[in-house]
Amino acid sequence: MNLIRHATYFMASLLLFASLSSSFAQSDEYVMVTFISGLEYWRDAYRGMEDAAQVLGVRTLYTGAVRYDISEQITVLEQVIAMQPAGILLTVMNPEALKDSINRGIAQGIPIVTFDADSPLSNRYAFLGTGNYQAGAVAARYLCSQVSSGEVAISSVPAQHNHVERRQGFIDTLENECPGLTVVAITDDRTDSAVAAREMAAVLMANPDVVGIFATNASGGVGVAQATREAGLSEQVTIVSFDFDEGTLDMIDEGLIDATLAQSTWQMGYWGLKFLYAIANDQIRSIADWKAAGISPLPPIVDTGVVVITAENSRFWRR
Amino acid sequence: MNLIRHATYFMASLLLFASLSSSFAQSDEYVMVTFISGLEYWRDAYRGMEDAAQVLGVRTLYTGAVRYDISEQITVLEQVIAMQPAGILLTVMNPEALKDSINRGIAQGIPIVTFDADSPLSNRYAFLGTGNYQAGAVAARYLCSQVSSGEVAISSVPAQHNHVERRQGFIDTLENECPGLTVVAITDDRTDSAVAAREMAAVLMANPDVVGIFATNASGGVGVAQATREAGLSEQVTIVSFDFDEGTLDMIDEGLIDATLAQSTWQMGYWGLKFLYAIANDQIRSIADWKAAGISPLPPIVDTGVVVITAENSRFWRR
Repeated sequence: MNLIRHATYFMASLLLFASLSSSFAQSDEYVMVTFISGLEYWRDAYRGMEDAAQVLGVRTLYTGAVRYDISEQITVLEQVIAMQPAGILLTVMNPEALKDSINRGIAQGIPIVTFDADSPLSNRYAFLGTGNYQAGAVAARYLCSQVSSGEVAISSVPAQHNHVERRQGFIDTLENECPGLTVVAITDDRTDSAVAAREMAAVLMANPDVVGIFATNASGGVGVAQATREAGLSEQVTIVSFDFDEGTLDMIDEGLIDATLAQSTWQMGYWGLKFLYAIANDQIRSIADWKAAGISPLPPIVDTGVVVITAENSRFWRR
Repeated sequence: MNLIRHATYFMASLLLFASLSSSFAQSDEYVMVTFISGLEYWRDAYRGMEDAAQVLGVRTLYTGAVRYDISEQITVLEQVIAMQPAGILLTVMNPEALKDSINRGIAQGIPIVTFDADSPLSNRYAFLGTGNYQAGAVAARYLCSQVSSGEVAISSVPAQHNHVERRQGFIDTLENECPGLTVVAITDDRTDSAVAAREMAAVLMANPDVVGIFATNASGGVGVAQATREAGLSEQVTIVSFDFDEGTLDMIDEGLIDATLAQSTWQMGYWGLKFLYAIANDQIRSIADWKAAGISPLPPIVDTGVVVITAENSRFWRR
């Protein structure tokens, strides 16, 4: 027992020494900074960060602007920078407005990585988020695995860039990989389920042979599922939605929606912290001169992808 | 001393136990599989893999098809799968031809990640490579930082997808972020410096006020630098190239080429191994049921970015 106690002490000393000598950061605390910080959507991202922290043996802190308010988020970010943490994982409410604060933090030696929403022209080391064009391709491939020929409709938001990208990835992938499916109508649902239901009802009236619908947002998905049910076409139409709430999961379990795509927010937190740790601990041995060489050890853009949720795995996604 | 010897033994036992209990892979060896395996280009990727291996305390092995021969690469990959390694980092000579072998390896429980060239429709966990559109945007931003108005020419390969993407990212970014620069000519250099020089000489004859050239490949870059020198326009024209060989670096040091973009192959190896290790060692604690939930813990597409090489940092890139 005495040996074990000594050995434990000895190991602890070794580990302490190793951690002090390998790290140039003063703190071992990594901070996640969001906006609308109470939002359920961030929870999985922070869970990923906590998982990585457990593996790495470091501490984490969650904070953010409580409201959807850019001056509040700037204030919070500046306060976090003043704490001199080991690294910051930041989701960006406004890319231009936060750029100067991001660059100031990095100039002070604090690694900053963005997630979910980026400030691409700042000096942030990396961005982790959903590649919306690729996500649209996943929707197309799922639909094609269920039904390979017939008419298809899309419920989307033409005014929003991320929705346009999802739609375009979907359309291009059908054309290239599943030419039996033809897009016959695209509606504007304004992310409102009542609007989505009304617009899609009109499309189904004009195109009663539609076999598939892709909705680029969760409210749109719920709305088009209501429209197909009311038109008596639930059996005939395969619906693929995007994102989810309890309503989406209920409709998946009832068979009204066939699948939805969940964004991989867990990964953003998990790999975000692993990235920050790699910078903060200078593990980059063979390119110790990476700063002088102008080399970034982190990938500038990471597409964390989407997960297809169906009745098979929907239970894992209940909160 | 005795205590230390005991403690060391104790620690080794503990570590051994930890590694046996946390890992479901039998091996701790990770294998990189390439084609034209003697190619200099892969060296930095394997160096990144070795760096990550040192951090993680695992072994690596480098192998590949010696020739540019798809049946040889299939054979090598099948042999590596038969070794039951802890993971495989694979660059893909032909996405369709290797798909079945990749899927077979993964079905046997061997994590496979692709790098530099992908098999997007296989079951590979992740792909790490250069986002060519984004790389074109980096070229545009660099050029714009040197000269903000005037005529610009592009030397490219219209028949090759990666070159088209680089060109498009360049053109779109100039339009959006640097409208003072206007593209007046695009040549086809067929990745041949003599062709590039001849084509660009004709462009410079017709457009003597050109202030910038983007070449989407290293041979093109060398060729257009020859053309501007022969036209006596080296001072006037800022040249941004892509990839590099010794000739490119020499011309950078002589001031004939202003910058080139190096692909981050080191990152592909470094993060590729970190990704494989995360799967093989099941570090994903809070989603231990990730396989049942259909969740991938790895990002499907990672853009490892480019590094701008100029006369300031060219010495770090000499091999």
